[in-house]
Amino acid sequence: MNDFRSLHRAGDPLILPNAWDVASARLLAGAGFPAIGTTSLGVAAVNGLPDGEGATDADTLRLVRRIAGLPCHVTVDIERGSVAAAVAVAAAGAAGINVEDAMGPVEPQVRLIRAVKRELPGLFVNARTDTHWQRVGDLAETLRRVRAYADAGADGIFVPGLREPGDIAAVVRAVDLPVNVLHDPCGPTLGELTGLGVRRVSTGSLLFRVALAATVEAARAVRDGTPVRTTGLPGYAEIAAAP
Amino acid sequence: MNDFRSLHRAGDPLILPNAWDVASARLLAGAGFPAIGTTSLGVAAVNGLPDGEGATDADTLRLVRRIAGLPCHVTVDIERGSVAAAVAVAAAGAAGINVEDAMGPVEPQVRLIRAVKRELPGLFVNARTDTHWQRVGDLAETLRRVRAYADAGADGIFVPGLREPGDIAAVVRAVDLPVNVLHDPCGPTLGELTGLGVRRVSTGSLLFRVALAATVEAARAVRDGTPVRTTGLPGYAEIAAAP
Repeated sequence: MNDFRSLHRAGDPLILPNAWDVASARLLAGAGFPAIGTTSLGVAAVNGLPDGEGATDADTLRLVRRIAGLPCHVTVDIERGSVAAAVAVAAAGAAGINVEDAMGPVEPQVRLIRAVKRELPGLFVNARTDTHWQRVGDLAETLRRVRAYADAGADGIFVPGLREPGDIAAVVRAVDLPVNVLHDPCGPTLGELTGLGVRRVSTGSLLFRVALAATVEAARAVRDGTPVRTTGLPGYAEIAAAP
Repeated sequence: MNDFRSLHRAGDPLILPNAWDVASARLLAGAGFPAIGTTSLGVAAVNGLPDGEGATDADTLRLVRRIAGLPCHVTVDIERGSVAAAVAVAAAGAAGINVEDAMGPVEPQVRLIRAVKRELPGLFVNARTDTHWQRVGDLAETLRRVRAYADAGADGIFVPGLREPGDIAAVVRAVDLPVNVLHDPCGPTLGELTGLGVRRVSTGSLLFRVALAATVEAARAVRDGTPVRTTGLPGYAEIAAAP
């Protein structure tokens, strides 16, 4: 297996699909993705919990333990995060984590990143800033935050919601680290993102929401007596653990 | 909410979609289905467990507890089943269960159904025989089993894999109970099933497999730079629990 870090290549970005349970992770690994992330929204929703407030810690850890044996790297969305959460998921087999600043003050976030890296120097820490996700920060604020997180020892920078080519280029120039953006059907194409120097494109909750939409559509089709897809469905051996 | 039993109507069968986690259950309830089942294959797979051997008991129970508050009836696939498992899911809020014979001897299954009904007279016990699912029994064997389960007090009969119109009609005639078949794209249409007297059509693992297929396709599209669906995706409020 390649080192997770080396998959973040300029000119050939890591496409990182996000899973929410063992089955989605298993299928994505089986489809040849060399690394998968988790989506805290998905993990929260499948367990009936709210997202973004640490309610998913136990379920996230359980998931990581159960998918750590798949033939792919796993990087874990631990929401705000903590040293304890980072240690726990790393011990469970994670190659990386996301920690998000949720637009809180910069200094505590810098201290968190520094503490995690001191404890777990081999863990890929993807530092997320929510300036664009929450639409509360301008580009200057974004650059201030990503530089601070880079200086603190982050291994990658994640700015979900970053969409303008000029802004993406500015973030890429601002740090000497892989920059991660979220796949955005209304944003630059994959080719354009590659040209801008983006080195990771992740899917966030998109796949989870696609799966749910397909679920409801198929159920409605059964109810309405209209055709349901029958091709390309995974079989038992692809889905389930060996007995 | 209607009584679950009364939803099994001749001429207007219950279409029962099967969920595997809180999010799929929530979305299906939101789509107006008055009852949802669980799929043990799905529950097993999302937890990285084998199906059909009771490995999912704890996860199934956890799921039932978490979806019992949805505005729909819940009927639970407890695989082979036991009185203890029936009591546990009923206490968690289930309106019904499936118990499958896995082609074991008839007498113990009859005793199980009788014991469950004695303990839980209000629980809708859907007795499944696997003659057609495992392709090991002929129609005579099917009729022998479903009559025995009906005599034992079952509330419904489920013969997954039953597909031939003549066989379906024979099972419907054999018992004075709602007969449940699995949605089968290669079998009779919903209109034909209705005409044959079927009173429940469930989806088994179909929706789960559709969801996984859609997941992998969307991930590949992101990787290949081809379009990913952007319409009809559920939003945060539809997916997640309130914080």
